[in-house]
Amino acid sequence: MTDLIPPTMILVRPQMGENIGAAARAMLNFGLERMRVVGPRDGWPNPKAAAMASGAGRVLDNAGLFADVKAAIADCDYVFATTARGRELVKPVVTPERAMEMARAMAHEGKRVGVLFGPERAGLENDDVILANAIVTVPVNPEFPSLNLGQCVLLMGYEWQRQKADVAPEVMELARTEFANRLEVERLADHYEERLGDASFFYPPDKAPMMKANLRNMWGRLNLTRAEVQTFHGMLRQIAYALKKQG
Amino acid sequence: MTDLIPPTMILVRPQMGENIGAAARAMLNFGLERMRVVGPRDGWPNPKAAAMASGAGRVLDNAGLFADVKAAIADCDYVFATTARGRELVKPVVTPERAMEMARAMAHEGKRVGVLFGPERAGLENDDVILANAIVTVPVNPEFPSLNLGQCVLLMGYEWQRQKADVAPEVMELARTEFANRLEVERLADHYEERLGDASFFYPPDKAPMMKANLRNMWGRLNLTRAEVQTFHGMLRQIAYALKKQG
Repeated sequence: MTDLIPPTMILVRPQMGENIGAAARAMLNFGLERMRVVGPRDGWPNPKAAAMASGAGRVLDNAGLFADVKAAIADCDYVFATTARGRELVKPVVTPERAMEMARAMAHEGKRVGVLFGPERAGLENDDVILANAIVTVPVNPEFPSLNLGQCVLLMGYEWQRQKADVAPEVMELARTEFANRLEVERLADHYEERLGDASFFYPPDKAPMMKANLRNMWGRLNLTRAEVQTFHGMLRQIAYALKKQG
Repeated sequence: MTDLIPPTMILVRPQMGENIGAAARAMLNFGLERMRVVGPRDGWPNPKAAAMASGAGRVLDNAGLFADVKAAIADCDYVFATTARGRELVKPVVTPERAMEMARAMAHEGKRVGVLFGPERAGLENDDVILANAIVTVPVNPEFPSLNLGQCVLLMGYEWQRQKADVAPEVMELARTEFANRLEVERLADHYEERLGDASFFYPPDKAPMMKANLRNMWGRLNLTRAEVQTFHGMLRQIAYALKKQG
């Protein structure tokens, strides 16, 4: 998986240096390092971009500068154009999820994928979108569709990274935890059943078997760690000891 | 689908007004409107937050202000804590994808889900995380894990929105069970802490705070059903009563 070529993020006529820096940070958050910049409004390199990027400065240092979109995508096998509003173009429109799924499949084939992001205010022009194979639109609230450049790059990077994880993290977390084995859980159940019996907890007598069964079922269901089993033993022991002494 | 209760985004001790405003925008981008704020550093309402939120001002206007995390999550049935770094707590750690899958399943059952976000610099404290049922961690590049508050809220909102209808059966199973809400778990933890305190369980005194924290974390982690919480109350009550009588 590690030698997949990640998609190239191509900022088209970006305006504010801060947004370019934010895009670089968002990329590096998700392990993307290939940035290209087309006709940045304030020239290149851009000190405000560098200041904002801080730890992600190397993404800017290594970014390619291009005069127009055609040149920036010349070596790409497939290009996505991110747009917020619908276009009067016959072109597939996909979600970020689907786009990065496609990008991953193409990367497996050794293909290069580019993603175009438009300038902050107006977005990509139709002439830019025409050069792309497909449109990506983030499914935002139509009444408040105000994603900025950095956020848009962030979501694409997130999707690229998300689809890489094949094992659910919670499963890994569970694997590292020392859970009690069945015998330890049995003994804990015995301990509580005994003390609770002494304390006349299982009442009335005809309900006792069912109450005991429910209690054992609960101990089994809780998925206690080894440490937690010790804690439950300790709590019961200490309370019983203290109350006896007190009496 | 439209009447699902979306998760409540709970900003814990947020610092910069700009970040609170950015969080409000990120929420509204994905149709989330329930914000709660716990102990904001610069008071409430916050003019800088309002300026940054611009079109999403109503999210701030309707936000609930709370003195502490306990109060902010009292009516939640399930709480996620977002953290960047790992914690020494036994608690499931899930991806945003999985978290919002769970949230959606629970929302289908009419349950309320809260998501805690920590202050910008330090993140949530362990005492906050202990109150949650599970931890959410965004799978960022470990060498550059610099997500800010607004980005973190954005990604959770994106995941909520992205997942339309399909919910894994095992998640539905989880949603159908009558789990205790946070307040009920709190009260159970209080009950045990009190009795164990009477029984001098928390010894030596300098270890007591850590022992109490671990115990509370355990109660939170166990995902007790409402019936199990009653069982644990009942066991403690009966043992204490019987031993006193005996003495």
